[in-house]
Amino acid sequence: MTRIDIAIIGSGPAGLEAALTAKNRNKSIMVFGSKDFSPKMVSIEHPITNYLGLSNVTGRQMAEAFTKQMAEAGIEISEQRITAVYAMGDFFGLQTSDNQMLEASAVILCTGVTAGNPYPGETQFLGRGVSYCATCDAPLYRGKNVVVISTGAHEEDEAVFLGEVCAHVTYIPLYKGDVTFSRDNITVVREKPLEIKGGMKADTLVTDQNTYTTDCVFILREAQFPSQLVPGLVTEGNAVKVDRAMQTNIPGLYAAGDITGLPYQFIKSAGEGNIAAISAAMYLDAKKREKK
Amino acid sequence: MTRIDIAIIGSGPAGLEAALTAKNRNKSIMVFGSKDFSPKMVSIEHPITNYLGLSNVTGRQMAEAFTKQMAEAGIEISEQRITAVYAMGDFFGLQTSDNQMLEASAVILCTGVTAGNPYPGETQFLGRGVSYCATCDAPLYRGKNVVVISTGAHEEDEAVFLGEVCAHVTYIPLYKGDVTFSRDNITVVREKPLEIKGGMKADTLVTDQNTYTTDCVFILREAQFPSQLVPGLVTEGNAVKVDRAMQTNIPGLYAAGDITGLPYQFIKSAGEGNIAAISAAMYLDAKKREKK
Repeated sequence: MTRIDIAIIGSGPAGLEAALTAKNRNKSIMVFGSKDFSPKMVSIEHPITNYLGLSNVTGRQMAEAFTKQMAEAGIEISEQRITAVYAMGDFFGLQTSDNQMLEASAVILCTGVTAGNPYPGETQFLGRGVSYCATCDAPLYRGKNVVVISTGAHEEDEAVFLGEVCAHVTYIPLYKGDVTFSRDNITVVREKPLEIKGGMKADTLVTDQNTYTTDCVFILREAQFPSQLVPGLVTEGNAVKVDRAMQTNIPGLYAAGDITGLPYQFIKSAGEGNIAAISAAMYLDAKKREKK
Repeated sequence: MTRIDIAIIGSGPAGLEAALTAKNRNKSIMVFGSKDFSPKMVSIEHPITNYLGLSNVTGRQMAEAFTKQMAEAGIEISEQRITAVYAMGDFFGLQTSDNQMLEASAVILCTGVTAGNPYPGETQFLGRGVSYCATCDAPLYRGKNVVVISTGAHEEDEAVFLGEVCAHVTYIPLYKGDVTFSRDNITVVREKPLEIKGGMKADTLVTDQNTYTTDCVFILREAQFPSQLVPGLVTEGNAVKVDRAMQTNIPGLYAAGDITGLPYQFIKSAGEGNIAAISAAMYLDAKKREKK
C-alpha cells in the first residue's frame, strides 16, 4: 500500500486550502469529503460579505469558485468516509467506512463542528456494543438484533446491509422525510435516543418512548466527534485543542477550521488550513532529515 | 473628537479582512495604510497558487479583486501614518505623522513583518535623541543638526521639512535610486548606519564610514518595529505575541497577519484578520455591557 504524505479529512474551506498549500509544498495528498465541499457552505443563499477576495458571493457561487480552483490545481476529493484515525507512531492508519485501512504520514482534521454531545454511555461502550461503522462491525453481530441511530438518508444503505447480516434492525432516523425499507426485518421508529446502558457491554438503548434490548447500537453520524474519530485526541468542549501552528496533542496530527472552535467563519477556516498544511509539511521534512 | 470603535493599522490582507468583518459587526472603523494595500503583494508577478477563492492570480490581480471588494463594502483607506499607539486604559491614543492624536476603543495591528533589528542604541535612546516622527519632534531640534535614516523615497518630504526647521540634515537613504534635494543644508550620504551612541541622550551616529555628531537621529521606516509602535507590547523575536484569539498582552489590542509571525501567507493573514476583528468586536460589546 502506498503511504500518502498528508491525509486531509474534510472538504470545507479549511480542507481545500490545506490541499492547495500541501500541494504547493510538493506533498502527496488525499482529501476526504464531499464533491460539494461543505453542505453548510453551499446552503447559504444570502451574500457572504466578509470573505476577502470573493465579494458578496452566495454559498453556491463560492463553491463554483472553489470547484474551478480545485480543477486547475488538479485536486480531487475522495468521497470515501473515514471512520477512525489511529496514530501508529510513525504514521497514521485511516479506517474507511468500506473497511479499508489507508496510511498517511501526517493528517489534517477539518471535519467541521459537531453539534451536541455523545449520548450517555456512548463513549463508555464504544467497541463494546456501540459502533460507528456498519461495514466494519456487522460481521460481529450476525444473527443478532441491532439498533441504528442515523443522521442522514445516505446511511439507509448501511441499514439494509445490516438487515442482510443481522436478525433484526431497529432504525432511528434523526432527519426529516419518509423512511421506508423493503426488508421486513428493519423497523423504523421515530424516537429520541436518550441513553445507552449495559454491563460489561452495551445491551440496552433507552429512548424517550421505549427501552430496547439490543446487541449493538450503531451510531452513524454525518460528522463524528473528534475524540471518537481519533482515539487519544485532546479536546476542549467540542473543539480540538490546537496551538498557533494548528498542532494537536498528537505529533503529526493537525486540525483546522470549525473543528478548532469559534469563530465559525470561512476565511478563518481557510487561514487555519494554510497554517496546518505548512506545519504538516515542516513535520514531514524534519522527519526526512532525521532519517538521513 | 470622535472616538472610533476599531482602528486597523495596515492594509494588507489581514487589515482588509479585519475591516470587512468589523464592518459586518456594525463597528465604526478606520483603516490606516496604503491605497495600494501592500507593496509586497502588488509586486508579485508569478501566479499565487494557494489563496482559496482566487485561482492563480498575480499580486496585481489580487489587488484589483480587493479594490473592487473594498469599494462595494464602502471601506476607505486612510494614508495617514500612525507613528505610535498609546494604551490609555479605556481607549487608545494614535499619534499620526502629522502630529494629530486620534482615539479608538480597540486597535488591530496588521503592519506586516519588519525585517532586521533596531540599531544598537536605538531603543535605549528613543525619545532622547532618537525619533520616529519628523513632524512631531522637529520643533525640538530647531537650529540643530540632525540625521535622517530613511527606508523609502516618500520620506524625502520629511527631510525637506526638517531642513526648514533645523540647521543641517544628514540624509541616509537605505533605498535605491537617485536622491537629491534643492536645499543646501541637506547632505545625502550613502552609508550603512551601525550604532547610535550617547550619554544621557544620543549624540552620535556611527556608520560603516564615518562618525556623525548629531542632536537627533530620525529613523523613518516603512514599518516600525511593533514594540516601538506600541510601548509595552510583548513580542517574541520580531513577532507580536498573540493567543489563538489574536489578543496581545494589552487588553483591546489585537494583531493579525505577518506581524504575528510565520507562515507569511496571504490567506493566513486574512484568516487572522477575521479572528482579530471578531475578538475586538466581542471586547467592545463586553465593555458596553459592563457599563450598563
